[in-house]
Amino acid sequence: MTRNLGSVEEQLETAGRDISWALGKLQAQHIEVPSWGFGDSGTRFKVFQQAGAPRTPFEKIDDAALLQSLVGCAKSIALHIPWDTVDDFKALRKYAEDRSIKLGAINPNLFQDDEYKLGSICHPDEAVRNKSIDHLLECVEIAKQVDSGLLSLWFADGTNYPGQDNLRDRKRRLEAALRRVYDAMPEGMRMLVEYKLYEPAFYSTDFPDWGLSYLVCNKLGPQAQVLVDLGHHAHGVNIEQIVAMLLTEGRLGGFHFNDRKYGDDDLMVGSVNPYQLFLIYCELAAAEDDEDDAVAQECARNVAYMIDQAHNIELRIPALIRSIMNLQEAYAKAILVDRAALKKAQENQDVLAGHQALLDAYSTDVRPLLAETRVEMGLGRDPMEAYVQSGYQQKIENERPAGSGMGWS
Amino acid sequence: MTRNLGSVEEQLETAGRDISWALGKLQAQHIEVPSWGFGDSGTRFKVFQQAGAPRTPFEKIDDAALLQSLVGCAKSIALHIPWDTVDDFKALRKYAEDRSIKLGAINPNLFQDDEYKLGSICHPDEAVRNKSIDHLLECVEIAKQVDSGLLSLWFADGTNYPGQDNLRDRKRRLEAALRRVYDAMPEGMRMLVEYKLYEPAFYSTDFPDWGLSYLVCNKLGPQAQVLVDLGHHAHGVNIEQIVAMLLTEGRLGGFHFNDRKYGDDDLMVGSVNPYQLFLIYCELAAAEDDEDDAVAQECARNVAYMIDQAHNIELRIPALIRSIMNLQEAYAKAILVDRAALKKAQENQDVLAGHQALLDAYSTDVRPLLAETRVEMGLGRDPMEAYVQSGYQQKIENERPAGSGMGWS
Amino acid sequence: MTRNLGSVEEQLETAGRDISWALGKLQAQHIEVPSWGFGDSGTRFKVFQQAGAPRTPFEKIDDAALLQSLVGCAKSIALHIPWDTVDDFKALRKYAEDRSIKLGAINPNLFQDDEYKLGSICHPDEAVRNKSIDHLLECVEIAKQVDSGLLSLWFADGTNYPGQDNLRDRKRRLEAALRRVYDAMPEGMRMLVEYKLYEPAFYSTDFPDWGLSYLVCNKLGPQAQVLVDLGHHAHGVNIEQIVAMLLTEGRLGGFHFNDRKYGDDDLMVGSVNPYQLFLIYCELAAAEDDEDDAVAQECARNVAYMIDQAHNIELRIPALIRSIMNLQEAYAKAILVDRAALKKAQENQDVLAGHQALLDAYSTDVRPLLAETRVEMGLGRDPMEAYVQSGYQQKIENERPAGSGMGWS
Amino acid sequence: MTRNLGSVEEQLETAGRDISWALGKLQAQHIEVPSWGFGDSGTRFKVFQQAGAPRTPFEKIDDAALLQSLVGCAKSIALHIPWDTVDDFKALRKYAEDRSIKLGAINPNLFQDDEYKLGSICHPDEAVRNKSIDHLLECVEIAKQVDSGLLSLWFADGTNYPGQDNLRDRKRRLEAALRRVYDAMPEGMRMLVEYKLYEPAFYSTDFPDWGLSYLVCNKLGPQAQVLVDLGHHAHGVNIEQIVAMLLTEGRLGGFHFNDRKYGDDDLMVGSVNPYQLFLIYCELAAAEDDEDDAVAQECARNVAYMIDQAHNIELRIPALIRSIMNLQEAYAKAILVDRAALKKAQENQDVLAGHQALLDAYSTDVRPLLAETRVEMGLGRDPMEAYVQSGYQQKIENERPAGSGMGWS
Repeated sequence: MTRNLGSVEEQLETAGRDISWALGKLQAQHIEVPSWGFGDSGTRFKVFQQAGAPRTPFEKIDDAALLQSLVGCAKSIALHIPWDTVDDFKALRKYAEDRSIKLGAINPNLFQDDEYKLGSICHPDEAVRNKSIDHLLECVEIAKQVDSGLLSLWFADGTNYPGQDNLRDRKRRLEAALRRVYDAMPEGMRMLVEYKLYEPAFYSTDFPDWGLSYLVCNKLGPQAQVLVDLGHHAHGVNIEQIVAMLLTEGRLGGFHFNDRKYGDDDLMVGSVNPYQLFLIYCELAAAEDDEDDAVAQECARNVAYMIDQAHNIELRIPALIRSIMNLQEAYAKAILVDRAALKKAQENQDVLAGHQALLDAYSTDVRPLLAETRVEMGLGRDPMEAYVQSGYQQKIENERPAGSGMGWS
Repeated sequence: MTRNLGSVEEQLETAGRDISWALGKLQAQHIEVPSWGFGDSGTRFKVFQQAGAPRTPFEKIDDAALLQSLVGCAKSIALHIPWDTVDDFKALRKYAEDRSIKLGAINPNLFQDDEYKLGSICHPDEAVRNKSIDHLLECVEIAKQVDSGLLSLWFADGTNYPGQDNLRDRKRRLEAALRRVYDAMPEGMRMLVEYKLYEPAFYSTDFPDWGLSYLVCNKLGPQAQVLVDLGHHAHGVNIEQIVAMLLTEGRLGGFHFNDRKYGDDDLMVGSVNPYQLFLIYCELAAAEDDEDDAVAQECARNVAYMIDQAHNIELRIPALIRSIMNLQEAYAKAILVDRAALKKAQENQDVLAGHQALLDAYSTDVRPLLAETRVEMGLGRDPMEAYVQSGYQQKIENERPAGSGMGWS
Repeated sequence: MTRNLGSVEEQLETAGRDISWALGKLQAQHIEVPSWGFGDSGTRFKVFQQAGAPRTPFEKIDDAALLQSLVGCAKSIALHIPWDTVDDFKALRKYAEDRSIKLGAINPNLFQDDEYKLGSICHPDEAVRNKSIDHLLECVEIAKQVDSGLLSLWFADGTNYPGQDNLRDRKRRLEAALRRVYDAMPEGMRMLVEYKLYEPAFYSTDFPDWGLSYLVCNKLGPQAQVLVDLGHHAHGVNIEQIVAMLLTEGRLGGFHFNDRKYGDDDLMVGSVNPYQLFLIYCELAAAEDDEDDAVAQECARNVAYMIDQAHNIELRIPALIRSIMNLQEAYAKAILVDRAALKKAQENQDVLAGHQALLDAYSTDVRPLLAETRVEMGLGRDPMEAYVQSGYQQKIENERPAGSGMGWS
Repeated sequence: MTRNLGSVEEQLETAGRDISWALGKLQAQHIEVPSWGFGDSGTRFKVFQQAGAPRTPFEKIDDAALLQSLVGCAKSIALHIPWDTVDDFKALRKYAEDRSIKLGAINPNLFQDDEYKLGSICHPDEAVRNKSIDHLLECVEIAKQVDSGLLSLWFADGTNYPGQDNLRDRKRRLEAALRRVYDAMPEGMRMLVEYKLYEPAFYSTDFPDWGLSYLVCNKLGPQAQVLVDLGHHAHGVNIEQIVAMLLTEGRLGGFHFNDRKYGDDDLMVGSVNPYQLFLIYCELAAAEDDEDDAVAQECARNVAYMIDQAHNIELRIPALIRSIMNLQEAYAKAILVDRAALKKAQENQDVLAGHQALLDAYSTDVRPLLAETRVEMGLGRDPMEAYVQSGYQQKIENERPAGSGMGWS
């Protein structure tokens, strides 16, 4: 890979910035990886098991630590409860911290027990609802133990057929349950409320879109924010606009990064529409620096950036490296935008000039800039190559035979 | 058409109702027709002009009056300003009332002046924004003059390319403008805020979904409510769920009825997916009678039901008759649902029984019931046949040659 | 349920038919049920196991026989190989025939062996392709043994990322493989080639749409036909038009019936959009009787009607009863269409009259007609009620505890 | 813009190519511009008229000539009949050739006469069908006169409501009409058959997808090929796969380039999903050089690359410059792919390596390479800047006031 920073420097100069500013921004980038991203996953048709899948939460942290040693920005790992339940969470936390990994968002599981066939916190049976709430409260406790400030909530709740349940009642149950959990959260902890158009529910989903997540968060209080998963929208929906809207309201809590061409395909982020990913980061990078919009700026600076993908057929650690590189490239291009030129074009109502201000950044090859960032952080220039050189894949395949590892259960 | 009410009576009995209750509900149904629904419309490729299109707002009222004399529930007509601007709105109102027609929602036009190329209330230029707001304020005044309690707002505002404008700034402009209009509304007047996924804007639309309409209405105050146009959603979006959510919040203001298979096709309501229309009415009918949810009940009883269609190739008045009959059938089936059985199935977690409670109503042939409703109201049993018998189509085609009438301008 | 046939008779008379003609048509209707429709299924998130799931292929036939005793048109059962592999297929056939069930389409499985991670007949490795072809040839042999004339082919083949494989090469491999299988089929056997937009492949699917299935069938020969699964299309695609197009070419081989609101949701057929199902049957019923289009008529009369659904949360046998009733209602309404009126309206370019000719049939309550059909066949009027009365559900739940049954594996 | 070719040369070396090879490929690129792309266009809501719109076909050629003097690859202009009808087509041709512009594809118009309300070649009335066919035959004659080898056919034909017309009859009429036109074409002329999911027809479109266009072309003969418009597909459809499939059959005739986020938005090509455009060009560039697939290679080398866009709010000539630059960048990146590495990864079943072979090319900044290409052709490095310098926009705005120009009529 070239060491030539020429065109990057040119674009930075145009944008009124310099290389050290850019390196500073990029070194501060933070991407959380999901513990389940290292394990087996698949479709309803088949889970293809790979050798090398971690067999314990500790091995997941080993993998995350190796990954972080290559990319530098994968500073934390999200946990899924009960998949990552251990006897001693403080020990898990110490194990992680010893490897320079922070334990991140706590993700409850409210979809794999038999009782949850018709829902969890929206279930028609109060006993099931209470079981769900207990699990959520348990996760608040775990978050406290591992010093995580994030409770990341996704609900599979919904219905498959009209008439199966009462939609207004389900909304009431949902609000009542989250109120109890919200009230149990300590100061400083945030609840991230995810939404999804469909799957596994096929008629209605109780959090179907950002509108309902926003509505509920707005009722709950300032510690409740919306989580945007890139694969959870209907076709055509403008995700970067949702991001912008939530920023102005201080309600953008975090992302689940992945990409999709059809449904919730959970492919590697940036692999289907890298330009969309760039546009999302443009909104975030602009808000980070926007002194005139204090709410958006504060919000942007606290966004939780998390990967949530299923690597059904490709090697997992390389897939995460590729994903992180895509996120780094998207952010790097976003900070290259000449915002003064952009603003001027918008004020002049010059449609094409405003568009070109984005394209000039997007067309720039930022790979040399990111290589330089890694060098400054004491890492290799190319994490994919460094992984191959590390021999780690061979090592884990030897140690962990196919079928012995953990997956989505 | 059969006069046989047998299966309707059977279903009503199952649902614990009787025929006179049903007739009462159906006689109270109200559908507003759009003044522009009588005139020429088309696609960007071609507007096919029909003989018989009204040449003045008064002729539109003539058509509405004739329509109402056949169907009985088309009690009001929505106006579009400036398409329906007249020197003396009070005279127009009297003309209408003399024909038993009420003037309904006032619909401003903020998309056909040359200044609006890049938006109206979200335009980057303050002068254009002010012009837009002035037009909205003028419409509030017109609403007062014609004794209409509804200001129905659709904004074509949006952008075609990333970078064309700042999305957060546009939201701020939008909120500021609507605040001014809201504050100018008299007590008792409601602002209905429509949303639309896309078209005519093709990158971002400033009110893209119910979430943003809700968010803004929630800030404005209790007189602002969301308007749901059935054709303005992404594929797969569950519209009846949006209806239910807005009902629980008291924020469902009204409908623009039409149907679509692809984009915003503006076909006759119920012509693509009549079952979806039935499910929407099921939510509305249930809320109307739900004593346990006062907010939803109050809201449901004040919903403004309005048609908004483009009859590009079919005869307009018959198209409106067909549309109204579809709305009547949907509502009639919705009130036939055995709600006790539905509720019991839901409590029993019997998925198929809950589903069947809806199907039993949907499968019932309600045409005889609606014929009976019309007879009770002194109308003919079959409005389509009555229209043919009336000779009105021949009359207007003679009086109003193709090309002489009004369309979308 | 009412015994009143009044409105049906009225509509039949309008259409120039009588009740005995209708009863004859309906008694001849044939729906094939899938062996896997009786067993556990789910999403990638969870398979909820039900008590009562059959434990052997023989028990699946027991369930199919019980079902057929209630509905009368479920005359055959599709087999999935190897899920339904038995030592002695002739014994299985005899077991079925003794219960008045015919063994229907043979469905190979080319997606659950570990070798198939990157495809089967399109796999880059010739060894995997040969294994796939061997399995297909084995299925031809099984079809011969069980006297089935149908080889029903669905391929999960595709890619998840651009660059993963060469799309033109994959097409060549696909054609070469099917040529070998086609040539191995005996006279009278038909190959049905299914297509699917996506899932489990998320970038490209090797048979993505009817166009490619048609193209390949057209090369293979007259015994190759296209199979239409209702859930395998992009949003908006007009399925009834695909049906009509394939009929004119004699290339419509069969259906996999189910319904969907989002992706390939595999819900009960007719549960999301019953009107679409009616329109599909309108094309089929019209072609069946169209003496002027011998190709379409011959084709329509040999279509294989098969259910392919996943009953994730509802009871399976009742779900199949509901599905079959939906198919019966759709077909019954389709044969009620007044085709002379329809044709006349079309010739007169009367858009609304043509549309209404379909609506008149669709609005008719055909439940009494279907009850009558069942009575003529010696069955109960209401199969759902008859199932409850039968005690069969209780019986199988007692005999077959949850988790003991077969699913998608 | 930087003159630094470093990273391009690096990538070319990796791919086993050199800079002169790349410059040769890029100088041979050919993009046809549409005559109507210079004029006013809009949505059904409003056509915003721009000063500078050409008032005659001759002025359209002036604009095309100016454009070509800046970009070098816009060598021909497509004509739309009757919008571009002149008394003497040979004079128009000479006028164009004197300005180094070739007259390209002839595009008939079968959607703007009043008779075409219910279709053209599929219309139920034979007289309308004959009128349509006459127009098509006239266009064949015009093509001969202007020495164009391309008849580019798009049909707005379709229906808005089920029952409006008989779908099988429409297909028969369509085939009969095209047979007559095909037979009238001289040797060497090609018929390009476009398809479109919807609009202006909203229930069925007679050429809805590539499958039907292929089917009909296959019957007509080798001079009939499919035209792919990037905006005419359902969401999710894999366009590059359609391209690949048609190439293997020798049936890919040409493109209508544009981009879309929602429906047929007709935005500038590459403005919504530039990565998809790159992937399409990857298929084309690979086939061009594929000695092992003679059919695909021959086909790829004869593809007609045409822009078809609506510039509703942006300046037209700059929009075309931007579009052409996007097409040049997509093609330039496509030829940079290291095909040996790609093939090797595919053979090794290394999913991520195959994917990365494409990404390595896509991430390269090809703007310096294209600047160099222009310099070699005697053009300025930056066509957008050159346009501003030319003063042409000011000139045409002065000469041609808003409203005086031609649009879609």
